[in-house]
Amino acid sequence: MLKKKIRTPDSVSKAELKQKIESAKEHLGELQRQYREAGIPVILVFEGMGAAGKGVQINRLIQALDPRGFSVYTGTRPTEEEQLRPFLWRYWVRTPAKGRIAVFDRSWYRMVQTDRFEKEENQKIINSKEINEHYEDINSFEKQLADDGAVIIKFFLHIDKKEQKTRFKKLLADPETAWRVTKEDQHRNREFEKFEKINGEMIAATDQHYAPWTIVDGTKKQEAAAHIIGTVCQQLENFLERRNQKTALKQPEPAPYSMGTNILSRIDLTKSLTEEEYQKEKEVLQKRLEFLHSELYHHRIPLIIGFEGWDAGGKGGAIKRLTNRLDPRGYQVIPTAAPSDVEKEHHYLWRFWEHMPKAGHIAIFDRTWYGRVMVERVEGFCSMEEWKRAYREINAMELHLANAGAVVLKFWMHIDKDEQEKRFTERTNNPLKAWKITEEDWRNREKWDLYKAAVNEMLVKTSTDYAPWIVVEGNDKYYARIRVLRSVVEALEAESTLAISERKRS
Amino acid sequence: MLKKKIRTPDSVSKAELKQKIESAKEHLGELQRQYREAGIPVILVFEGMGAAGKGVQINRLIQALDPRGFSVYTGTRPTEEEQLRPFLWRYWVRTPAKGRIAVFDRSWYRMVQTDRFEKEENQKIINSKEINEHYEDINSFEKQLADDGAVIIKFFLHIDKKEQKTRFKKLLADPETAWRVTKEDQHRNREFEKFEKINGEMIAATDQHYAPWTIVDGTKKQEAAAHIIGTVCQQLENFLERRNQKTALKQPEPAPYSMGTNILSRIDLTKSLTEEEYQKEKEVLQKRLEFLHSELYHHRIPLIIGFEGWDAGGKGGAIKRLTNRLDPRGYQVIPTAAPSDVEKEHHYLWRFWEHMPKAGHIAIFDRTWYGRVMVERVEGFCSMEEWKRAYREINAMELHLANAGAVVLKFWMHIDKDEQEKRFTERTNNPLKAWKITEEDWRNREKWDLYKAAVNEMLVKTSTDYAPWIVVEGNDKYYARIRVLRSVVEALEAESTLAISERKRS
Repeated sequence: MLKKKIRTPDSVSKAELKQKIESAKEHLGELQRQYREAGIPVILVFEGMGAAGKGVQINRLIQALDPRGFSVYTGTRPTEEEQLRPFLWRYWVRTPAKGRIAVFDRSWYRMVQTDRFEKEENQKIINSKEINEHYEDINSFEKQLADDGAVIIKFFLHIDKKEQKTRFKKLLADPETAWRVTKEDQHRNREFEKFEKINGEMIAATDQHYAPWTIVDGTKKQEAAAHIIGTVCQQLENFLERRNQKTALKQPEPAPYSMGTNILSRIDLTKSLTEEEYQKEKEVLQKRLEFLHSELYHHRIPLIIGFEGWDAGGKGGAIKRLTNRLDPRGYQVIPTAAPSDVEKEHHYLWRFWEHMPKAGHIAIFDRTWYGRVMVERVEGFCSMEEWKRAYREINAMELHLANAGAVVLKFWMHIDKDEQEKRFTERTNNPLKAWKITEEDWRNREKWDLYKAAVNEMLVKTSTDYAPWIVVEGNDKYYARIRVLRSVVEALEAESTLAISERKRS
Repeated sequence: MLKKKIRTPDSVSKAELKQKIESAKEHLGELQRQYREAGIPVILVFEGMGAAGKGVQINRLIQALDPRGFSVYTGTRPTEEEQLRPFLWRYWVRTPAKGRIAVFDRSWYRMVQTDRFEKEENQKIINSKEINEHYEDINSFEKQLADDGAVIIKFFLHIDKKEQKTRFKKLLADPETAWRVTKEDQHRNREFEKFEKINGEMIAATDQHYAPWTIVDGTKKQEAAAHIIGTVCQQLENFLERRNQKTALKQPEPAPYSMGTNILSRIDLTKSLTEEEYQKEKEVLQKRLEFLHSELYHHRIPLIIGFEGWDAGGKGGAIKRLTNRLDPRGYQVIPTAAPSDVEKEHHYLWRFWEHMPKAGHIAIFDRTWYGRVMVERVEGFCSMEEWKRAYREINAMELHLANAGAVVLKFWMHIDKDEQEKRFTERTNNPLKAWKITEEDWRNREKWDLYKAAVNEMLVKTSTDYAPWIVVEGNDKYYARIRVLRSVVEALEAESTLAISERKRS
């Protein structure tokens, strides 16, 4: 199947080929400069059969590039660090900044290629649900990057069974290169047809207009090089052209803010606790959480908690009570401010990926990726198209985290407008707390209704069973803190992997 | 010896102690805010005997802190990533940003504490040269951070042999905690006196006024907690006071630029090569370098190459010819622009540490840490005190890298003023190269003499046998590129670990 798709290059003489490559190289160097100036990130993916020549082809391609503008990443087996994190983590943190080129020698396709083959050979079963999840993850990952303006060009280098066998033999005969042919390589050669079928399926499932595959015949190196560099140039040119046309189009008028279902109006803000009740419950829940933290650690389950809420809604206080008794070696609080200049050069989710916790650890985000559909939406820091797309992107990210075994919880710290004013005034008058309040807080307050609409829409569109929103009745601080603590404890006790509820019963 | 230094806390009642701790906690929270506003980074180090209660004490201390403002790092065994890099790498990249607190539960003292003990027990020899190198590294590391404005507070938690044995027994008796006592812990208990001696030496060798040790008796937890929090508060207060006094002092007048020894004037810029000579030599040297690169990889030697030079001095061209045939999976080119806002919040060396290569890899810096003594000095981006100190700091860093096994080379791409003007004009007139030249380049040119003085001083003060400067005669591009290639090849061939010259001879 794969073979049919391979384009046979027009037969040309050696000299012509060399000339073609040389002029394409010059052209590519010029395109790199244009892309840098335009601030467009470029992602080049190389996958293929063993010994098809990925390394050689990458080497040739990058000779045309300014080495200060690209990075090459090799898809070796994941390191310890990487194994402790969701599968996409190592790729997210390596997505290129605006105007840079990232070349991946093996990539996020490992899971649906060699890893899948190995699994199926060992266990003799095909878990198609798992495979489909991987395809979805991959497509969603690439789509997000493409939607954010990245160019993605993917190459699959193919050689046939006989050619591969010959190359392996040659490599094995030389003690200097023998180590490059693994047992797994040889196994995949013996079972070439099976492995080829897996690759064919992979290409079919992930060949998208925003990230197309080009299958390259790797038998003749020079022809393959010409094919690759020609494809890169052409796709980079096409993209620039389409982009310039798009920019020329008028931006659509923003639609009026949808009020959505008004979740916030149904929150009962009169709920409260006495100090005595608070102290008592806090003690019990913090102890319980301390125990659950060690269970998380033993079962290697990551926990991700996001805090959002009105200014002065009590995020800081809640986080403090949540972490008070936790072992500091097992959690991290990540304060989210306006993105730094480096962060601005990346996809808006990039900076959060960096902080996603290792297996068994807790990451608490004080403000989160939901900034995209709140402050960035309301203040116009991103386009309507961007924040509308963000609900889907965020759901996809949280699903990926949940699929990787993480518990994901999100808190909205809710207070009413009067309570906020009371707290603002209190802070202003208390010299110990005055630092907490700025001019900006008062300005944000004027946009209360716009934020309210955004929050309501966010709560509707991103409340999922795998990453639920918990709206916290926050007017009474005691009540709110206990509500947060209890929600975390309950979520962990319900976590089936921990099987704590079962153990309690027995 | 250690025991004598332990301060016996004044005996106070339990209630008094609790009260004391509570008020210190409040005070500490307030100090944290002051430090955040003042933008002062704080480093807290916890070392000590096994089971002395470091974890418990850190937990108690951080309860007083806003969790959004600190991070706790645990000194577990280094990960794969970390093992492939110089020993200080994992700590440099974790030094806190301005206004943040980093708490190290075990730290850079591992090498001169448990690691040393283990080594000496196994090999029955003491390598005091190596130990002294570690002390120097540590002192230089801490001094650099302190000079840059960080507060460093170090605690050593002590318990005696008997107490430790009792605690180990208790931990071992409970299956939930037994895993926490390792074979090594028990061995150190049996050889308590030896291990204590090592710790005593360590404390004596690294007890500096800018990073003092406080030895805390860990026998009674409550007393220890009071001692620790009290010490932190007091040292933070003292530092603030001293700092305010200093700021009030007048800054000294800058001294006139020293012209130093004029190395640059002795460079022969008439050296040149024909195109034919160039192509021939390039071919040979690139092939040789390709081979040496694989040798580096096999012997796990990191190679660090820094490029500095006049604008239009030919850095880019030289880097391109250097990397042309290298396997891209084994090298990285790091372009250095003005520091980002995140980088500005750290020590000026921090951002370079992030990119220091793994064992067997090559890092090529296009502009380097020498910006401190060139552009930052000339443009007044740092104080005279800061750039004067930088020569020593840079030498210390490069020595540390060399001691960790790295080959360190630095190139100054030298051209004269006329040649620069010629290249600037050429670039301006060539549409394919016009992007390379900016207004700033012309402005920098006006400061040629100031830069020249700075470069001369830099070459004199930072040319070391472990990290030499190579001044490249750059007026002729062919000559310059070959000079760079040959220098790298020769440096690697002279590298004794590779023992290539020996092999060639045999």
